[in-house]
Amino acid sequence: MNYSQIVNQIKLKKSFLCVGLDSEYNKLPKHLLKTQNPIFEFNKQIIDSTVKYAIAYKPNSAFYESRGIEGLQSLIDTVNYLKKNYPEILIIADAKRGDIGNTSKLYAQTFFETMDFDAVTVAPYMGEDSISPFLSYKDKWVILLALTSNKGAEDFQYFSENEQKLFEKVLEKSKEWGNRENMMYVVGATRAEMLTEVRKIVPEHFLLIPGVGTQGGSLQEVTKHGMNKNCGLIVNSSRAIIFADSSEDFAKVAAQKAEEVQKEMSSLLRF
Amino acid sequence: MNYSQIVNQIKLKKSFLCVGLDSEYNKLPKHLLKTQNPIFEFNKQIIDSTVKYAIAYKPNSAFYESRGIEGLQSLIDTVNYLKKNYPEILIIADAKRGDIGNTSKLYAQTFFETMDFDAVTVAPYMGEDSISPFLSYKDKWVILLALTSNKGAEDFQYFSENEQKLFEKVLEKSKEWGNRENMMYVVGATRAEMLTEVRKIVPEHFLLIPGVGTQGGSLQEVTKHGMNKNCGLIVNSSRAIIFADSSEDFAKVAAQKAEEVQKEMSSLLRF
Repeated sequence: MNYSQIVNQIKLKKSFLCVGLDSEYNKLPKHLLKTQNPIFEFNKQIIDSTVKYAIAYKPNSAFYESRGIEGLQSLIDTVNYLKKNYPEILIIADAKRGDIGNTSKLYAQTFFETMDFDAVTVAPYMGEDSISPFLSYKDKWVILLALTSNKGAEDFQYFSENEQKLFEKVLEKSKEWGNRENMMYVVGATRAEMLTEVRKIVPEHFLLIPGVGTQGGSLQEVTKHGMNKNCGLIVNSSRAIIFADSSEDFAKVAAQKAEEVQKEMSSLLRF
Repeated sequence: MNYSQIVNQIKLKKSFLCVGLDSEYNKLPKHLLKTQNPIFEFNKQIIDSTVKYAIAYKPNSAFYESRGIEGLQSLIDTVNYLKKNYPEILIIADAKRGDIGNTSKLYAQTFFETMDFDAVTVAPYMGEDSISPFLSYKDKWVILLALTSNKGAEDFQYFSENEQKLFEKVLEKSKEWGNRENMMYVVGATRAEMLTEVRKIVPEHFLLIPGVGTQGGSLQEVTKHGMNKNCGLIVNSSRAIIFADSSEDFAKVAAQKAEEVQKEMSSLLRF
């Protein structure tokens, strides 16, 4: 999926919502546990009911890996289901991988060939050769961690050299490796005011923004500081949508929550 | 597995060798491709033939994940085989994970419960809450990336604030979260002289040293700068051992290579 296809979807749906499929087994509605493939069944119903309001889905691989073979199968099934039924959707593997060059190449293969994800989140600590293997795929995306939404972000991401913070260095340096057509950045919504700084360095790139909703970020603040002329934002919401209800109506309630977010997004979009 | 059990194994085998099971399908001896589970069959034969000379095995998860369900099954089979037949061996998942707290908890579950690894490599970028969930398991280990062996290490790991480099900050800060009983560090052998700096900050911890062999690091240099009174080193070699030969004798040749390394280690050990 390329840059303009993403922008077109945002225009079409008046939404820049990504639904995070953090489908933790222990949090699934009880009635689904009797089905053969509960996590996939849950995802399928969530996707079908929210897809009108979303342009992207983002399964976090930890929630699948922790269930072993069965979990991996649910992840594969979810990606295949999305590709088959909603090919216009951006599918993000939230996997936060990163290793030496020849190993990162195999991670790229994992997410872009073995599974057919459009994008994968990557950790920057190991530098260029850990990231560049993901960039050699046409119409696939690296989403590089820059400034994350968790408390621990403060431990190292604000470390600074000559008044440049580490996350700013990551943004600056990685511009040499990728561009707005193959690279996005994770910037946490809990630090919306930092988006102004981020935009000075990467005005054109898409930013994937986690932390709106449960983690306390505000959509208005994010838009104010981070939106560019092509929107340039993909805002993720996970638990606040997918686990809003645990009854047999869970998918309907998820759709209502997604619609609420989409409505707010629609009012904030400038095209 | 606890600290003194590892030290005892080193004394017993006169070795601090970790064999990296970077068992890339395309590099397997051709005659194994006809077997039902080629990667596991390869690992089993490598393990059986080298275990006299090694105290640890380290499958890198990328090589398994890239093969999908079949690859994950090979990884699970490998861990189970080691646990059952060689319970004295330290089994390291080289997975370089790290995510926000509630997600890292599920990665810890993946590697310490769903699979029975003793240790997992973790990336530091996201800070404390991405690391601490792994530390709550008794006799399990976090191996935190500090200074890696690849070229890209220079991009961010040498970033410095008040003459403290980022990898030094990672060492310093993470000492608040773990100790020599539950935390080790990755320090690349290609930067052996930096081990002196590393040892000033973490004199007691075990260091996992990749990059000896194929990547060009020297065992003598590593020992000179990094060894402490309990050895404190686990040196990994992957391709130079496991892919030394691709004929039907591959396991025998791997054993010879492992023995060569073990002999050199034996001469360098100070107890």
